[in-house]
Amino acid sequence: MSSSEIDVKTRMRALELIRSSFKKLVEEIDRGHKLHLVFPKRTLSNTIYDQKAKILLLGPDVQYRSFTDINEVKKFTQTLLMASIIYNSLRNNEYPTIRDLFYRGKHSITYTSIDGKTVSENSWDEQRESDSVIRDLEVLLNILREDLLILSKEKGKVVGNLVIRSGDDIIDLSKMGHGAYAIEPTPDLIEFIDIDAEYVLVVEKDAVFQQLHRYGFWRKNKAILITSAGQPDRATRRFVRRLSEEFKLPVYILCDSDPYGFYIYSVFKVGSITLSYESERLSTPTAKFIGVTLTDIFGTEVFKEILKKPGVKETLEEIAKGVSRLKSKQPYLSAEERKNFVIKAKLRDIERAIELVGYRVAEVCMESPEYRNKIKRKEGVSGYPWFLAPEWIRELCIFFYTTSKLEIEAITGKGLKFLADVYIPRKIESKDWID
Amino acid sequence: MSSSEIDVKTRMRALELIRSSFKKLVEEIDRGHKLHLVFPKRTLSNTIYDQKAKILLLGPDVQYRSFTDINEVKKFTQTLLMASIIYNSLRNNEYPTIRDLFYRGKHSITYTSIDGKTVSENSWDEQRESDSVIRDLEVLLNILREDLLILSKEKGKVVGNLVIRSGDDIIDLSKMGHGAYAIEPTPDLIEFIDIDAEYVLVVEKDAVFQQLHRYGFWRKNKAILITSAGQPDRATRRFVRRLSEEFKLPVYILCDSDPYGFYIYSVFKVGSITLSYESERLSTPTAKFIGVTLTDIFGTEVFKEILKKPGVKETLEEIAKGVSRLKSKQPYLSAEERKNFVIKAKLRDIERAIELVGYRVAEVCMESPEYRNKIKRKEGVSGYPWFLAPEWIRELCIFFYTTSKLEIEAITGKGLKFLADVYIPRKIESKDWID
Repeated sequence: MSSSEIDVKTRMRALELIRSSFKKLVEEIDRGHKLHLVFPKRTLSNTIYDQKAKILLLGPDVQYRSFTDINEVKKFTQTLLMASIIYNSLRNNEYPTIRDLFYRGKHSITYTSIDGKTVSENSWDEQRESDSVIRDLEVLLNILREDLLILSKEKGKVVGNLVIRSGDDIIDLSKMGHGAYAIEPTPDLIEFIDIDAEYVLVVEKDAVFQQLHRYGFWRKNKAILITSAGQPDRATRRFVRRLSEEFKLPVYILCDSDPYGFYIYSVFKVGSITLSYESERLSTPTAKFIGVTLTDIFGTEVFKEILKKPGVKETLEEIAKGVSRLKSKQPYLSAEERKNFVIKAKLRDIERAIELVGYRVAEVCMESPEYRNKIKRKEGVSGYPWFLAPEWIRELCIFFYTTSKLEIEAITGKGLKFLADVYIPRKIESKDWID
Repeated sequence: MSSSEIDVKTRMRALELIRSSFKKLVEEIDRGHKLHLVFPKRTLSNTIYDQKAKILLLGPDVQYRSFTDINEVKKFTQTLLMASIIYNSLRNNEYPTIRDLFYRGKHSITYTSIDGKTVSENSWDEQRESDSVIRDLEVLLNILREDLLILSKEKGKVVGNLVIRSGDDIIDLSKMGHGAYAIEPTPDLIEFIDIDAEYVLVVEKDAVFQQLHRYGFWRKNKAILITSAGQPDRATRRFVRRLSEEFKLPVYILCDSDPYGFYIYSVFKVGSITLSYESERLSTPTAKFIGVTLTDIFGTEVFKEILKKPGVKETLEEIAKGVSRLKSKQPYLSAEERKNFVIKAKLRDIERAIELVGYRVAEVCMESPEYRNKIKRKEGVSGYPWFLAPEWIRELCIFFYTTSKLEIEAITGKGLKFLADVYIPRKIESKDWID
């Protein structure tokens, strides 16, 4: 078997990084010092939303893991165990997954406790535990696990006027026929060789990607067309970020018009709230939500109705200043099309939307008694800061008021030509997106 | 926008097929005959397992849909509505998905009933209904929907010494770098130009595919490496079938060792029980289950233990003759590895396994009182005929007896080298598979 040149280099770099990072521990032992590790804390309370950079970041809190502290020794030992497993994988030309690493480290240690009992302790029982240790190592070593050649399943696909080097091959992503290029799980090892594109269009749904691809959308519009096939994985997010960063290309995200679609956009743009340490490398702060918006479906007349309800305007203005002065818009759908295409939101959609913008928006906008009575007021759920912009508040208001959602397929139901030749180009041209 | 040459041809062919099939109806109208459609019945009772061809087929029963029968008129009208939507999509250079087709046909007809009331009737309310009509059309026209240029999401990926023409491009699938080629949703339109391979290896899990790919497995072993990324979709199944049929390549399926893995193999080989009409074109009757088998994990000693239980041997022999005389095998895992890698089966795994081989096998083999009491004896569940082979009965016996399952990742946990250089090649070389 033969590894590509880039993998050999990556292996060397990763081995050296692990060696140098843990050498300190060996020196501590030599000096007779107490062993410990220090690294940024990966907790929600140490997660900060940087308003200016528009990404989630780890705050200043650090975590100590001491070998001689009874409460920390297990985590300390797990960290060293995982580091050594990864180190050996790198040396042995392996490409483990996080699941492999869980299995490789899974074992029991039997020892005699102070009071003479035989005790058995497992390294870890659940993958949740070993995954957490891998994340600690990413933070400790300040490296993405992909750069330690840890692989994972990968759903992202791409086509467009883009030539890349991956492994030892040069690949022209405009020559994929009706298929597509499935992005590798280590997107930092891709070299961009040539690109001729005006923007990146990320489509949530693979089936819509297939249609736009087949229709020749990316060729006509000089777009790099990407699908995340649902919730984006790390490699797809990193790939999009690199295109945005290295070529200053605008990135537009096309999702269903529902809280899940909005959240997919949010993961691309800001990052995942529980894994904020990744955001610095994986998120694309300039990404724009191009649609489908609820104002695309209903226009803004309905929002004016909502604002007329007593007290609503004041409450919404308090949450997001300027929300009542947003520009008017005509809908893309007729009343008849709305009737046939719109889907009634389920309770879990409502709950998901409350997570995005907080309970108060739901409370003032929601009419449906069916849901009003079922929603429990959760204290402390005040929404994600980046969803508290006027444009998003207006969207979610319409969502709560109409309890309606819409799939991208409804737009292609109106005609693929409409989606490809009217909707997307017009949205981009008129800058009708949410930032 | 420009369609590829093959798409233009496919469109013409599909239009002609629909036109000629429905021309008969127009002629019937001209003659003043009663309008009706006749096509094979797509029911479970009209599904036959062809023991010789080893695939599921539709039986001889036919279905009538008459325009003048009050019970059939809605289905008749739905069929014509869907045919006309597809026909227009083809004419308009569209590439609809089944979800689009659902949306496009969704509308209400308001009419005055015999007793003077205004009645409103929907074309369909759920996608389940419109999907069923699309399936009827596939059977009626004797064509796969992909050949009507109906697209769908597509998860399958491939790498290997294979050059194809897709659309207007020639693509060398051995030059995909660390990424892969994402198979198009219309695999019948692919032209195989050049191939240099000894077999096809289909891996259930994308992450394991990534590892084997990166390790250079397909190059070293002259394999076409494919992943279905879970339950296979139609395009991946058709792609595998074409490789098997057109190049007489052996096809090996590598899955988790659990009833879900066994079922994935079964879908590739025999087809899906509820969609038997597809099997003739989508299934690969020569596909072999290469692993992971439970005898790979436990060896066959444990099966000998089971056979010693009173009455077991007789019962099993009655279900699958020869099961007690199967060859002995040494396990690939040590007792220590088993302890760390094996996962306890859940109740739903047991229930799934009963669907495969019937309740009696579970009843005689299962020891665990925890599950014995929870499983309800379902009459009529006697297993799928193709799982009632001695080799499968032995596998499922061990499954019920040990209530254990294992992921492929456990094998890579033992080392990617072990999976790539020992396990897979040795299994193939020694023909240690289940047919």
